[in-house]
Amino acid sequence: MRNVNKDNITEVFMGYLSEDTDPRLREVMSSMVRHLHAFAREVNLTHEEWNIGIQFLERAGEISDEERHEFVLLSDVLGLSSLVDMLNNRPEGTSSSVLGPFHITGSPPLAVGGDMRRDYTETVLLVEGVVKDPDGNPIPGATLDIWQTAPNGMYSSQDPDQDTYSFHGLQTVGEDGRYAFTTVKPIEYTVPADGPVGDILRACGRHPWRPSHLHFIAEAEGFRPLVTEVFAEDDPYLDEDTVFGVREDLVMRYEDKPAGTFPESGFALSGNVPDAYLRVEFDLTLVPA
Amino acid sequence: MRNVNKDNITEVFMGYLSEDTDPRLREVMSSMVRHLHAFAREVNLTHEEWNIGIQFLERAGEISDEERHEFVLLSDVLGLSSLVDMLNNRPEGTSSSVLGPFHITGSPPLAVGGDMRRDYTETVLLVEGVVKDPDGNPIPGATLDIWQTAPNGMYSSQDPDQDTYSFHGLQTVGEDGRYAFTTVKPIEYTVPADGPVGDILRACGRHPWRPSHLHFIAEAEGFRPLVTEVFAEDDPYLDEDTVFGVREDLVMRYEDKPAGTFPESGFALSGNVPDAYLRVEFDLTLVPA
Repeated sequence: MRNVNKDNITEVFMGYLSEDTDPRLREVMSSMVRHLHAFAREVNLTHEEWNIGIQFLERAGEISDEERHEFVLLSDVLGLSSLVDMLNNRPEGTSSSVLGPFHITGSPPLAVGGDMRRDYTETVLLVEGVVKDPDGNPIPGATLDIWQTAPNGMYSSQDPDQDTYSFHGLQTVGEDGRYAFTTVKPIEYTVPADGPVGDILRACGRHPWRPSHLHFIAEAEGFRPLVTEVFAEDDPYLDEDTVFGVREDLVMRYEDKPAGTFPESGFALSGNVPDAYLRVEFDLTLVPA
Repeated sequence: MRNVNKDNITEVFMGYLSEDTDPRLREVMSSMVRHLHAFAREVNLTHEEWNIGIQFLERAGEISDEERHEFVLLSDVLGLSSLVDMLNNRPEGTSSSVLGPFHITGSPPLAVGGDMRRDYTETVLLVEGVVKDPDGNPIPGATLDIWQTAPNGMYSSQDPDQDTYSFHGLQTVGEDGRYAFTTVKPIEYTVPADGPVGDILRACGRHPWRPSHLHFIAEAEGFRPLVTEVFAEDDPYLDEDTVFGVREDLVMRYEDKPAGTFPESGFALSGNVPDAYLRVEFDLTLVPA
């Protein structure tokens, strides 16, 4: 069109889409561009602001690599990642939550009752529960990929003092669907704020903190994979997770267990925990595929 | 909020913006995130689609550098660049149009009546007009930064056979506001389609062509700078510019001038154009700052 103007450009764009365009692509592109144009019109976006946006994207691209995913972080802090999780969630199962950038593949097997704490001397945390279907039946053979921060608030990939698979484990549950492991409390931490996304957080007066959490990917044949996180009820950032990951059904509670009550069998640490410890019980419900 | 859900997450985001946030930043961020979330809800964006989007941004970042601005190209083909131009346009002046990625600074002076054609042997094109204010008064001393493609459809920065400033010139008009130069016809060309933006064009069944055009940046003290392009009336892509740059008032017409009629003075080529030539007259109207 030679007479493109600010009011018809969105329709001109739609007219450029060929008849053969995949219907879903057409739907997504149309909605995206309608909203992009509506945004620019609504705020009367200036050239200077447009330029700031372009420079932001170029800077985010510059620092992105295999280890650093600044565009994922952008999506996280704008709430898009969590919104996509929630849009695709099934209410009859445990809520999903953001995967985050610290998952690694190839975690070592962690037997039911196994220990992830290794040499750390903090109070033992015993985590257990059942992987079940929406009717409450256990799911035998389900696998749990588990990861969390060390007591310094860092994941192994961020911390030269931890080996690759520190606080990472892959557990396969038995016939009773029960999972269990010992560890230490995960710690709240900040998302990487030294890049352009950090600049956004600062400009908006937002902090970069996430409440402490345990990560799980639960999988079982015939069920939808569940990527989720479980958050501590008493965490100071529970109501202000900078990536919007907390859901009401993902809040766990630490029970204080007195000295001398650690289970006498069934755990790698049985017989070696004379002191008081913490316990969390949290079931994970998977939805049939 | 611990009870973030797909319906309240936009409001939760707004609640994260501090009271001290710059009001304009708050306005832009709020509108952007409202539209981003509305888009995701409207199409029920899947994790797979979200992932395609993230990979797109990472790939665009990977190929971006000083020479290649894939995010600018993305903005161009989605119509955002042109929309920003039009939102900031003043109706009493010549329309602005996209700057594009081929502008370079430091172009050599080009006297009024000077020549940009150099050794090219194509038909001479004489371009002239007046730089004026909205009342029609000439603007003495206005500068015009001019650039265009060579007859092979390439800008100097894309073409090893052209030197840096081939088809680039900086003209300062005199008291009468008149600009004039000789050149050859600019040629239609394709935007770079070998990156992720090219993948979008192909997936949508869109071509990468731009109609042929002359680029101008007109500047004068006391006036808003004008970044624009002027398009040939008979160009086959005039009604389907892939970056939405054409405006009705930016269409120029080539007049066929018979042999022996080239001006006898006032041009570097005067006395050296015995053949038929082409002429364009196009005035540029600047708006007071």
